[in-house]
Amino acid sequence: MELIERFFSGDIRALSRVITLVENRADGFREILGQLSPKTGKAVKIGITGPPGAGKSTLVYCLASLLSSKGQKTGIIAVDPSSPFTGGALLGDRVRMGELSGANQVFFRSMASRGATGGLSSATDNVSAVLDAFGYQTILIETVGVGQVELDIIDNCDSVVVVVVPESGDAVQTMKAGLLEVADVLVVNKADRQGADSLAQELKHAISLKKISEESWRTKVMTTQADKSIGIEQLYELIQEHLGFIKANHQFDNHRREQIKKKILAILSHRFRREFLERLADRVDFEKIIDDVYRGKTDPYRISDRLYETFTHSQ
Amino acid sequence: MELIERFFSGDIRALSRVITLVENRADGFREILGQLSPKTGKAVKIGITGPPGAGKSTLVYCLASLLSSKGQKTGIIAVDPSSPFTGGALLGDRVRMGELSGANQVFFRSMASRGATGGLSSATDNVSAVLDAFGYQTILIETVGVGQVELDIIDNCDSVVVVVVPESGDAVQTMKAGLLEVADVLVVNKADRQGADSLAQELKHAISLKKISEESWRTKVMTTQADKSIGIEQLYELIQEHLGFIKANHQFDNHRREQIKKKILAILSHRFRREFLERLADRVDFEKIIDDVYRGKTDPYRISDRLYETFTHSQ
Repeated sequence: MELIERFFSGDIRALSRVITLVENRADGFREILGQLSPKTGKAVKIGITGPPGAGKSTLVYCLASLLSSKGQKTGIIAVDPSSPFTGGALLGDRVRMGELSGANQVFFRSMASRGATGGLSSATDNVSAVLDAFGYQTILIETVGVGQVELDIIDNCDSVVVVVVPESGDAVQTMKAGLLEVADVLVVNKADRQGADSLAQELKHAISLKKISEESWRTKVMTTQADKSIGIEQLYELIQEHLGFIKANHQFDNHRREQIKKKILAILSHRFRREFLERLADRVDFEKIIDDVYRGKTDPYRISDRLYETFTHSQ
Repeated sequence: MELIERFFSGDIRALSRVITLVENRADGFREILGQLSPKTGKAVKIGITGPPGAGKSTLVYCLASLLSSKGQKTGIIAVDPSSPFTGGALLGDRVRMGELSGANQVFFRSMASRGATGGLSSATDNVSAVLDAFGYQTILIETVGVGQVELDIIDNCDSVVVVVVPESGDAVQTMKAGLLEVADVLVVNKADRQGADSLAQELKHAISLKKISEESWRTKVMTTQADKSIGIEQLYELIQEHLGFIKANHQFDNHRREQIKKKILAILSHRFRREFLERLADRVDFEKIIDDVYRGKTDPYRISDRLYETFTHSQ
């Protein structure tokens, strides 16, 4: 049977194979995504981010369990290099995830964050589309909340949960790290630890001061103890509340359309770059140009203008 | 007097003004960079990176003091949002930096890491070129060692110092964070703390196992106590040793040429994107296209191919 046929028949091994092809941008991956595209768009994507050690993976595990118990098929993508899901760390979690996935309700996959230069965000999005097409209804995407690529990935989610712990520092630190801006739900995890309640209060206060329009969602703050599964149901409800809110005022749709636009532009830039380089290799001595810049005879901006003209006038 | 004239006469206020223009990509910034380019290429760029709280800023301060005492004009660019140089934190450091800069030997500037979407690496490179053209002989660039943008910035440096502390975790954690790969000199700071020596030993061991060619530099490991200025002279010497090594076997030149190539391609991609969008707006109904993708009628890859053809055949 064809790979795609097996995929659509619900064969988990075909799913794994398709993800690998897509993640590696193997020959034909665009065609595969094209074949899957009519089946995409149904899954909800939830980003879970925060500093290393905040307990994101445990929270993801708990959320997946809860979703599973509600009959929701859940996919997990771990982009966080420090996540136990990526295979580097805590065996315990992996075993537990193994149990969950045994029920075939939860599928998890880690993304190689090294090597996929410039393409990690795009690769994550593509893998997410594959899970969506396969029938996973909720996709949990775990990242470490730092850096532009990670923010791109998070921005691509419908709802974003930011996880902090008292050790992450005070509310000011959280704001400085840019975590407040991206959070739809802000979770103070390890709520039994000292400073957790005051951190939650500080964060609530900071958020209450934010000037936002009436149509905007105001970030919710809550506490959890993920290692004891405390607060997970409330987290689930807040995520649902957020999704309901953005669906009601079309922000859900608008945001997804914005992401599609970004994706198309990224693909185009990539292609331009590739074809441009090929054409360049035929027509100009790029080594000589680099040499000229290196010696200060010209500068990257001036030379880029010239090269651009060469490209666009050589069709 | 013209801004550029004042700049070349050594006017610090003109320097600040030029940096601001370049950082904000204000009208005419390309022309300014063009005028400065014949004067660039002399400064050595040293990246200092590592996790938050590793003491990077203190180390940068110490290095700048040492370079200053050796008569070297030193520029500091802080891209790290948690750096005291960015104005967010420790007043003490800023006062001390103020003292250093009073001697006019040291100039420091922080980069706004939010908002410069996709352009932070390019902006940092441009500001570095400005400092170079002004006559700063060494440029220290402080970043937090996480995320693709930060790695791009570090990759643009001639020599990279990675700073870790015992609290950063063990050697395995450091490796997992990708810090080992980028380090030319690996500093275990806060060497008086428990675990510092064993961490340094572990890291040395991990590095000794790495298979590298004879022409490759093998990362050096050392310990410092930056808050007591201990180890700074040795750090300086190891950086010099690294620079000497890569200059001797042309890696210094090759790496810089590679960076120039990357920069030209980035400028070209950016311009393509801008002009493409303008042309697109005239010719196709982009909203309709996004709608088709959203409804699964087509997919981003297929539609990108079509749009690309439209663009390249409409010259």
